[in-house]
Amino acid sequence: MLTLFFAPGSSSMAPHIALHELGAPFESRPLSFAKQDHRAPEYLALNPEGKVPTLLIDGRPLTEVVAILFYLASSFPDARLSGGDVEAEAHVLSWMSFVASTLHSAWIARRTSIDVTRAAFGVANDRLGPREWALGGRYSIADIHLFRLYWRFRNWANPGGNEFPCLSRHYDRMMTRRAVQRTLEIEAAIGYELPA
Amino acid sequence: MLTLFFAPGSSSMAPHIALHELGAPFESRPLSFAKQDHRAPEYLALNPEGKVPTLLIDGRPLTEVVAILFYLASSFPDARLSGGDVEAEAHVLSWMSFVASTLHSAWIARRTSIDVTRAAFGVANDRLGPREWALGGRYSIADIHLFRLYWRFRNWANPGGNEFPCLSRHYDRMMTRRAVQRTLEIEAAIGYELPA
Repeated sequence: MLTLFFAPGSSSMAPHIALHELGAPFESRPLSFAKQDHRAPEYLALNPEGKVPTLLIDGRPLTEVVAILFYLASSFPDARLSGGDVEAEAHVLSWMSFVASTLHSAWIARRTSIDVTRAAFGVANDRLGPREWALGGRYSIADIHLFRLYWRFRNWANPGGNEFPCLSRHYDRMMTRRAVQRTLEIEAAIGYELPA
Repeated sequence: MLTLFFAPGSSSMAPHIALHELGAPFESRPLSFAKQDHRAPEYLALNPEGKVPTLLIDGRPLTEVVAILFYLASSFPDARLSGGDVEAEAHVLSWMSFVASTLHSAWIARRTSIDVTRAAFGVANDRLGPREWALGGRYSIADIHLFRLYWRFRNWANPGGNEFPCLSRHYDRMMTRRAVQRTLEIEAAIGYELPA
């Protein structure tokens, strides 16, 4: 039994999309930052940092977006959301590590430096290049992870389609996927509590 | 054929230790930041961000510490440096993701806030707890990744053994390992170029 603790629009959106991609049955546990759900003792017992997401696997907590995405993709191999061999899988992790560190750190720094943030998304744009997906021809959890951060950045910075053309086309491709649409609908219906 | 591009004392130390743990044959390519080796066109062709480490796998570049550690552990499964099953492997990634994002971000922020840095290492200390290794009884690439950042922090902040007792014991355990000693010897002999 899988249970996902998430906050609409936050980084937990990536595992949320992955669960819909996989068609995996799971229990939804939305948290409200405004109501301080993430500081409640029951939640801190699962995730001492009070962060989202947390995935419960038969009651056992797993934290960190990259680890949860890897677990989901590996547990449902038929969906082929990870790499095909060890080297391809390592490239999926390389992408996700880049998104989680370089890109996310730059995003966190946006209040002090818009330039740093845009430069990092420029690196991501070049890294993606003309490929359809992060791995090339194959859709993977790396695309989900990349999409979520660009979605957030896009809503905030409203870049023109020409500024990050590769990311922009990737975004459009992602938005045609049923799992992405479904996740956005569900999370919007619960309501976003996102800082400016 | 494996080739590691690294800079002594930098985050590339983790894959460097892992290669020695595995006893894997590899070609060593130390870079000097002072000499701007990481900005040379030949290196940027492999790693457009100009970061270390880069691992060449039969000439194909793989970037990001977490991805390289995962690749090495998965390619040499007999050394058992990763998890035993998918869930254990996900926990290895959860630890490494925590080190790479929470802990490393706090480390980067050290110049603006020592408190943030110490708080993050406090979280790491509690997360490790009384366990021998990050996974519990089993040594893994997560320990190597954690060790490298604590080693760097320890050289900088010189914390007392009582401030982070679990990290301090983990450090002592790591320092008894031949692969760790060997890597430190090699990198020190080449010479560190570490910012204060």
